[in-house]
Amino acid sequence: MSDRDRTSRFGGPEGGGRGKDRDRNPHGKPHQGRSEGRPEGRSPGGGRPSWRDRDAKGGRRHGKGEGPVILYGWHPVTMALANPQRRIRKLFVTENAERRLADEKIDIRVAPELVHPADIDRRLGPDAVHQGLLVEADPLPGLHLDELPQDGVVLVLDQITDPHNVGAILRSAAAFGAKAIVTTGRHSPEATGVLAKSASGALELVPIVEVPNLHRALNEMNDAGFLTVGLDSEGQGDLAAVPLRAPLALVLGAEGKGLRQLTRETCAVVARMDMPGAIKSLNVSNAAVLALYIGTSRLGLMG
Amino acid sequence: MSDRDRTSRFGGPEGGGRGKDRDRNPHGKPHQGRSEGRPEGRSPGGGRPSWRDRDAKGGRRHGKGEGPVILYGWHPVTMALANPQRRIRKLFVTENAERRLADEKIDIRVAPELVHPADIDRRLGPDAVHQGLLVEADPLPGLHLDELPQDGVVLVLDQITDPHNVGAILRSAAAFGAKAIVTTGRHSPEATGVLAKSASGALELVPIVEVPNLHRALNEMNDAGFLTVGLDSEGQGDLAAVPLRAPLALVLGAEGKGLRQLTRETCAVVARMDMPGAIKSLNVSNAAVLALYIGTSRLGLMG
Repeated sequence: MSDRDRTSRFGGPEGGGRGKDRDRNPHGKPHQGRSEGRPEGRSPGGGRPSWRDRDAKGGRRHGKGEGPVILYGWHPVTMALANPQRRIRKLFVTENAERRLADEKIDIRVAPELVHPADIDRRLGPDAVHQGLLVEADPLPGLHLDELPQDGVVLVLDQITDPHNVGAILRSAAAFGAKAIVTTGRHSPEATGVLAKSASGALELVPIVEVPNLHRALNEMNDAGFLTVGLDSEGQGDLAAVPLRAPLALVLGAEGKGLRQLTRETCAVVARMDMPGAIKSLNVSNAAVLALYIGTSRLGLMG
Repeated sequence: MSDRDRTSRFGGPEGGGRGKDRDRNPHGKPHQGRSEGRPEGRSPGGGRPSWRDRDAKGGRRHGKGEGPVILYGWHPVTMALANPQRRIRKLFVTENAERRLADEKIDIRVAPELVHPADIDRRLGPDAVHQGLLVEADPLPGLHLDELPQDGVVLVLDQITDPHNVGAILRSAAAFGAKAIVTTGRHSPEATGVLAKSASGALELVPIVEVPNLHRALNEMNDAGFLTVGLDSEGQGDLAAVPLRAPLALVLGAEGKGLRQLTRETCAVVARMDMPGAIKSLNVSNAAVLALYIGTSRLGLMG
């Protein structure tokens, strides 16, 4: 394990620059910095937006920036409250939400600040379904690459930028008991806001490993005994026909772009998922859940 | 088959009112009427937004309103151009997109109107990834319930309102060769804009059956020989253990709400999908692709 992987999460340039990536990515643009992008009003961290704050030196944590992680909605907030690793800075609740928390006997840990639903609307934008709950929290500690569990499936995301998709993938990973998600520090959404909402609490369950260079990380995983399987519509064979074994790493690329050349070359196997219909590719979170199902089943880990 | 199913797509009140549905649906709100919601400027149809135009009497067509269906982006537009059933009203192209269409020898059928990328941005909002292509088209003719093919899998959507999710489900349905999607006229997004973009061309491939009353439609499908299988985390058994056969209808409910009571009661079987992890539910489009994979495999239709 190189020292760089351990400490410098914003170290190496990973592929093209940001502008280029934005232009090419069909899903990253629509959501970045929308409702959760720029929390208005009482933002600690000196009013700096925590979303996409690339210059902050946050150390080895999910949230990347120094600003707080924003969690809203029932599942993200209650799962965070139940996670002793998650430090809660502030908890904003509406009267209704406070009653529901009490009814369901949820330990809220910190003194809540009572707000009106419109206060949260103003902060998140009118479209966020927050159910009267908003938390400011610290990012969770991440995992080192050499701490990856060897007894199951790990997902590797190659520059998947849309927070809805990454959130849904986290949720599926938690559903299938995946051990971790490996992702690049750059060209990936922060573990906050929309992503946390789409993950529906899974952010508290699935450790994230952020690496500066995916090519190097995959090499290290190969050396550590992982079977690294890239998924690509141009893959040599059907995933269902590949002899899979633990520890297994399933590597997914961004929609449209797919796996980058170097990523593809570093995977031990590149497989496709055969489907009988006229369209040959799936939404990336749909591809992820299918790969998780096939991988988890084949490893005998379906419970 | 009742006469009502054939003609009146906006006939029966289906469950609660719209306001209630909006409040409860965790995913429908964020996207409705955002970028593609209200195409600005040169809107034929008298400037009425085609999205969510519930009062229009459009006859038996996907698009519901009288306004045009808006398709943008490479896959949705080129698949529409390749579909002889899709009447193209107008085709707007940028210079780059026009060159790409020519390079790939795509028959554009109508005289294109040359525009600047910013013109399309203005119309769709800055977040839509349109790749220099926008089409105004007629809605496609839908299918009648009694025209459903009997030799495969059909998906039934019970008030899934988020156009991203429904689009992704359409795309997966096309990938697995599903025969049709049955959906309610109300509490479902229109087959245009974001939905079409998320479907990535699948709108041209998978017929949609819109019914005014899902309970009645499921009864008729039961009578017509379909095995109707509702998917619900509270289902009696694992979908993988249910003896499946064609014609098979997989019935999915909205996230959070799940299947409505009457829907659940009308399905021949209600099954869950067992997963080994700590989270027991998936994003609805992820649940759909998994159900499609299991159903299609079990019916021996994987090709």
